[in-house]
Amino acid sequence: MASDLFTDAPALPTADDVRAAAELLRGVAHRTPVMTSRTLDERLGATVFFKCENLQRGGAFKFRGAYNAVSRLTDEERARGVLAYSSGNHAQAVALTGRLLGVRTTIVMPEDAPASKIEGTRGYGAEVILYDKETQSREELAAQLSQERGMSLIPPYDYADVVAGQGTAALELIEETGPLDALLTPCGGGGLLSGSALAAQAASPGCRVIGVEPELADDATRSFRTGTVQSVRNPPTIADGLRTPALGRITFPLVRAHVSDMRTVTEAGIVEAMRFLWTRMKIVVEPSGAVPLAALLADPDAFRGMRIGIIVSGGNVDLANACQLFGA
Amino acid sequence: MASDLFTDAPALPTADDVRAAAELLRGVAHRTPVMTSRTLDERLGATVFFKCENLQRGGAFKFRGAYNAVSRLTDEERARGVLAYSSGNHAQAVALTGRLLGVRTTIVMPEDAPASKIEGTRGYGAEVILYDKETQSREELAAQLSQERGMSLIPPYDYADVVAGQGTAALELIEETGPLDALLTPCGGGGLLSGSALAAQAASPGCRVIGVEPELADDATRSFRTGTVQSVRNPPTIADGLRTPALGRITFPLVRAHVSDMRTVTEAGIVEAMRFLWTRMKIVVEPSGAVPLAALLADPDAFRGMRIGIIVSGGNVDLANACQLFGA
Repeated sequence: MASDLFTDAPALPTADDVRAAAELLRGVAHRTPVMTSRTLDERLGATVFFKCENLQRGGAFKFRGAYNAVSRLTDEERARGVLAYSSGNHAQAVALTGRLLGVRTTIVMPEDAPASKIEGTRGYGAEVILYDKETQSREELAAQLSQERGMSLIPPYDYADVVAGQGTAALELIEETGPLDALLTPCGGGGLLSGSALAAQAASPGCRVIGVEPELADDATRSFRTGTVQSVRNPPTIADGLRTPALGRITFPLVRAHVSDMRTVTEAGIVEAMRFLWTRMKIVVEPSGAVPLAALLADPDAFRGMRIGIIVSGGNVDLANACQLFGA
Repeated sequence: MASDLFTDAPALPTADDVRAAAELLRGVAHRTPVMTSRTLDERLGATVFFKCENLQRGGAFKFRGAYNAVSRLTDEERARGVLAYSSGNHAQAVALTGRLLGVRTTIVMPEDAPASKIEGTRGYGAEVILYDKETQSREELAAQLSQERGMSLIPPYDYADVVAGQGTAALELIEETGPLDALLTPCGGGGLLSGSALAAQAASPGCRVIGVEPELADDATRSFRTGTVQSVRNPPTIADGLRTPALGRITFPLVRAHVSDMRTVTEAGIVEAMRFLWTRMKIVVEPSGAVPLAALLADPDAFRGMRIGIIVSGGNVDLANACQLFGA
């Protein structure tokens, strides 16, 4: 791990950490399928490979990072339990990990998280503590609970073992497809994006790694362009997994060092991409997971002739919410 | 093929015909994935394998039968084009086959078929002729058009090469899973069910093959029980692929000879099964494709401890219709 002698900057994970995570996750995480669509390839004039993390355990890539992180705690730490805060998929991932490893879990979630995600988290045996996003800070609440209970906090993205775990999806994808010209992932707090960038750098040198955000939650794009961390507050995007306020102390330097570009997409573009994934590819993908395809559909000229990987990050949706988006 | 010396009964396809179809379809039809769900297996106390024909070309198993049938026409017949009638998936399958083999296609479809299926059929380059189910007979209309235009009629199920093609999905499933205790398929006109029964007989002797129908369209169940062909007329089931009036001259004797049992499911049961497939397994399945899972969910005791195969027959849905079913 690289370190910085002059500040208290945290150690950053490397491609070797992603490989070690892949080793640890073998036989535990699903090796999710890679899907393609002739219709899409003809429409775009490109070859697109979808890594279907909506079919991952817990319904999202988040299981990779959570399991990697909790597994690497000491026995003593695991005995005291773990705590996490999350708008949804990280919560379910930590809860599922806890069940698999016999570790007690407490999850801090916003009151307005999709009901399916709250239920899923409880279903895995976690204690769920709800908070009001408008009046409470989840970071402070989690820190306080962590101190009171002696539980280890597993943050959703700004944590080296979480980032390394998230990178394993891209590693598997490239192992299966061979070298890619571009790899697109959604970007919330940057855990998936920076982990994927580490993986691509090692497994497909020269591959352009591109993070995609909703226009309404474009903090990482602005951070990438300006070189200083920018933030958003409760952005009203339908991509509920990407409402994270800002890149973190680990993910921001990784994004700056290893990501080629950032793009933003409209809310209507996200719905169009979801509609394609549901009706043509027959897979259920949540709004956040459709964001990279939205970027391709919005600007096919930029990707013509390329071999493109996309991480379909998750599939945890309330049908009622999704149907509203589809105007149905 | 077996024949009957005393009547004009048509020649019936055999397991060898299914194997020959599998050979012909290799590299043309997708070898669709087999999915499982830990959650479901725990809930049912059984092991269930889903053969995902919703991910087949054209979005349904129907491509298998259509391609097998059109491929076996003579060059002269193919030059004159083919004609089909279908409430949806067979239409798309014949249209797609026509495009792949360079054969002109005309499809007779009911005016009230899902818009996605009509568009899909036209999208593959077929001429679509709509008819009114209440006042016109599609069989008569198709026979008349076939005669006027010299086109070969490819019926949706009552045709040996179609039945043999449909059986290839079950053959692939069993090749992948090994012997099964039970195999459940939806039953409309009986093409998929009887083809699957031929495949199971050859590849997994002793496997109980069970056809499942909506209660509202229980003609095949009544035919199976009484030993004479019973029919329904425009049954109002949401499973639009299973509104077929009756088993045919080829499928009825095959069902009687090779199928172990028939079951029926409620409309609410079909929606519950769809909801599970969409939200837990993250795959888009049309109502007809959810019918076998509905039978398992309705009576888990009958299947406890078994290794069960299910053919998920298709995924072609209008999102607006599906959302209405989900009450969303």
